Amino acid sequence: MSDHPSFDQKYTLNPIGRVSSPLVSRADAPKQGDEGTPDAWLVIASEYADAAQDLRVGQDVFVFTWLHQANRSVLRVHPRSNPQGRLYGVFSTRSPDRPNPIGLHRVTILEVNGETRIRVAELEAIDGTPVLDIKPILKPGRER
Amino acid sequence: MSDHPSFDQKYTLNPIGRVSSPLVSRADAPKQGDEGTPDAWLVIASEYADAAQDLRVGQDVFVFTWLHQANRSVLRVHPRSNPQGRLYGVFSTRSPDRPNPIGLHRVTILEVNGETRIRVAELEAIDGTPVLDIKPILKPGRER
Repeated sequence: MSDHPSFDQKYTLNPIGRVSSPLVSRADAPKQGDEGTPDAWLVIASEYADAAQDLRVGQDVFVFTWLHQANRSVLRVHPRSNPQGRLYGVFSTRSPDRPNPIGLHRVTILEVNGETRIRVAELEAIDGTPVLDIKPILKPGRER
Repeated sequence: MSDHPSFDQKYTLNPIGRVSSPLVSRADAPKQGDEGTPDAWLVIASEYADAAQDLRVGQDVFVFTWLHQANRSVLRVHPRSNPQGRLYGVFSTRSPDRPNPIGLHRVTILEVNGETRIRVAELEAIDGTPVLDIKPILKPGRER
């Protein structure tokens, strides 16, 4: 007997907030966070305020987003570094177009306003992008 | 006019594979990947083989999983380092119990068998855990 989930089981994401950013389209968004990306606010839904209560200025965190404009049927892409080159499987790229378009962003917290508004540095996600999770970046011996 | 998704929009995850591991229960699973965790296989569903085609032995990747046994209603937890201490918001912890229980695992690829079976080092996820995504870890100047 096994309690494995079925191979075709689906799972439902309930966004915990959204991004508020001056970036308004995918064309505006830099490809990675170190290419002149603006700061952004994470606006957390009030029902998840308790989960965000210990986020503090200066902390480095991973922000998980849902790249809601992605094309989920894409399995291979031309790398941005060489659009004339061969196709690569999307699991070897950071393309937003992929079967489960989860964005992973490493950011520093710049400001916390009332537990549900968190300003972060250099977030490469467009305005309105759903936020799924926030996790601390672990330092050795500092797991919590 | 805005094309923002509604704040209560849900999203559906379609797992791209699952973990095959000697770890069979949450009680067996180490809390982080560097605490004696065994190697595991990522078994990719055949319809996603094209997305996995460029994964190679020796590459470091992030594996995203769905922690299907998690309690999604938990917003605050006692840190494992101090179960008698105060509660922390889950976004400041790596607790699997959180609103969207996405697991993030940094692993090295040890073996690739036929494009859909990938052995990785020290994956802290139990047997049967759904796999959502695989992303390369970027090195400066090497974005693809």
